[in-house]
Amino acid sequence: MVHLAAESKTANHVAWTRVARLRSQMEMHGIEAAVCTKPEMFVIRGEHAQASAWTSSIRLFGSWSNIKTTAATWQEALGIILNELGVTRKRIGVEHGSISVTQYREIAETAPEADLVNISPCIDLCRQIKDVDEVDNARVAARIADVGMEAAVAALRQKGATERDVAIASMQAMNEYWATNYPEVEIADFGSPEGGNHNGLTTWVLSGPRKSYACDNPTPRAPKPGETVSVFIWTVSNGIHAELERTVCIGPASLTEKAAIKSVLEIREEIEAHLRPGIPVKALYETARNGYISRGYSQCLPGRIGHSIGLGSHESVSINGSSDLILTAGMVLTLEPHIHIFGVCGTQFSDTLLITEAGFEYLTHFPRQYLEVQ
Amino acid sequence: MVHLAAESKTANHVAWTRVARLRSQMEMHGIEAAVCTKPEMFVIRGEHAQASAWTSSIRLFGSWSNIKTTAATWQEALGIILNELGVTRKRIGVEHGSISVTQYREIAETAPEADLVNISPCIDLCRQIKDVDEVDNARVAARIADVGMEAAVAALRQKGATERDVAIASMQAMNEYWATNYPEVEIADFGSPEGGNHNGLTTWVLSGPRKSYACDNPTPRAPKPGETVSVFIWTVSNGIHAELERTVCIGPASLTEKAAIKSVLEIREEIEAHLRPGIPVKALYETARNGYISRGYSQCLPGRIGHSIGLGSHESVSINGSSDLILTAGMVLTLEPHIHIFGVCGTQFSDTLLITEAGFEYLTHFPRQYLEVQ
Repeated sequence: MVHLAAESKTANHVAWTRVARLRSQMEMHGIEAAVCTKPEMFVIRGEHAQASAWTSSIRLFGSWSNIKTTAATWQEALGIILNELGVTRKRIGVEHGSISVTQYREIAETAPEADLVNISPCIDLCRQIKDVDEVDNARVAARIADVGMEAAVAALRQKGATERDVAIASMQAMNEYWATNYPEVEIADFGSPEGGNHNGLTTWVLSGPRKSYACDNPTPRAPKPGETVSVFIWTVSNGIHAELERTVCIGPASLTEKAAIKSVLEIREEIEAHLRPGIPVKALYETARNGYISRGYSQCLPGRIGHSIGLGSHESVSINGSSDLILTAGMVLTLEPHIHIFGVCGTQFSDTLLITEAGFEYLTHFPRQYLEVQ
Repeated sequence: MVHLAAESKTANHVAWTRVARLRSQMEMHGIEAAVCTKPEMFVIRGEHAQASAWTSSIRLFGSWSNIKTTAATWQEALGIILNELGVTRKRIGVEHGSISVTQYREIAETAPEADLVNISPCIDLCRQIKDVDEVDNARVAARIADVGMEAAVAALRQKGATERDVAIASMQAMNEYWATNYPEVEIADFGSPEGGNHNGLTTWVLSGPRKSYACDNPTPRAPKPGETVSVFIWTVSNGIHAELERTVCIGPASLTEKAAIKSVLEIREEIEAHLRPGIPVKALYETARNGYISRGYSQCLPGRIGHSIGLGSHESVSINGSSDLILTAGMVLTLEPHIHIFGVCGTQFSDTLLITEAGFEYLTHFPRQYLEVQ
């Protein structure tokens, strides 16, 4: 309840520099304590939490068989802990960006004399730069995604394979690769009050006109010759996400689709030339924008061409024209300029990459090129 | 954004009685409009939304290629829509239970003259009773869960099978059963700002001492003879969840484990005798409590013995000793008294059931009994 940055289950031994960075942010803003909550799942209890977290101070609430808890409700437990910490009249940070109005009011009632301030900006700032263990996990997630894409493309080579066949084959391949190669890695994603995500290795396949749905389950539709297919892969390693997306052509694509794919791949290369610390995020969008316009795609400019990724599959950095952020080593981003003209064509290329001191490094390695099967 | 109960993708033709029920709740509280939000995923856009929702009035915001949107931001779009509806000075419902403090303040700024009230209790009340299409989907989700449990038990019969082997075999079986038998069913779960859940057919397997973790990914650990294994299965059909959990014994279990399993199965039968409309929810807990105490388990009483399930895998009804709710036909609940004595024994039996006019009906059908393999 009251513990920050305890979500990744690996590497208790690495320097938790994000905890240090958050503490320094808190100090700068005179914040003495932070109350952070997780939606619902995954509850990590008692000894399990002890084995996983960066802190040894784990306190439980509620009624769990013969386990001793601090109090019956989280409100009571929080009141006791804040009192022990001597911060009931101090400035306490609360995540306005994610906590519900109801929970906020319950915290305010629990600590009526505290000065509750919004700590979301401090946390967002810390999450922009990844620690070593987070980058390691992004690398594992990206490697699993590569395996999933290889399996998806292999499945698309099978005559009559449906969207579901391809997605299920890809997910099975990722699960087996995970089981064989990463004994210590957890692939549970985090959850929400609407349900947890117990297995975060997933593939979606949208073929032909269904590409424009962008978010949808694979259906029993089989892609037809001449169509293109969007393959979306999302993976997670110890809570850290990666994303990999490709357009696959079933036989030669139409000239319109080919032109869009060629353009997107060129625009990506133009952006790559600017991927290094010190470059404004909006300059990446401007580069893409110029690329779209000079190739005749000014009518279908996207709202953004990528985002940060980490504990969330979409974090706070948005690569758009109004961002005031600067690229910094340690940022993990997706790069994904797309061209979707509804009813005409649709491309879907996304990779996960790391901004390094020297420039950048792709974490997903599946070939970034025109890809035709059958 | 402004549309309620549009989440299930099936059965546009069925009576959306939950929409009518919510409208009547709103009328009773003088609420003229409701602003409801989804965390992040799944964005259902444009034509996809038109094809799926109960309402034909879909409005978009943001920048999506050549798609026409109402405004660049959701705040602007909301302002325009509230103005069109003529409710900018009326009482508007907002979900305090799920909306973030930041979003709440943005709505308040968008509608500064409106009287924003908490509509979460009205929505929770509506969600307690399931519509016909929701029950149909719970039935599909439960059937898929049964198939997953059959596959998990079959995998546990294989010598040397690890937790991961069992979980992956179970998920593969569910995916294939879904692909073959339910062409129209979506199994994407809903998501959170931390990531979506693109495939909601999942199995967890925790063996031996790891049972006490309750929430954890399957590991490469192989269950040992004489141990018991907790198999957790969660499924979803068009947004509606089911849950199925079993304890499986690898060869004869210890007398302690056997006694706990026998006790839990007996306690369930005692509760079943009370599962009908008109019975207070807390009476179920009292029956369980008496069952625990009379069998010598007074030291490990659980906080609750089940919960409602539907759009969320854990909804607002909690089967505990302080509930003031009454069982009503149309409620979908899990029944899951467990006995966990850490370091000693742990049982895990959960089923999804429907309260009917005549009593109740189990939606999951996998045998509810002592189960031994090998």
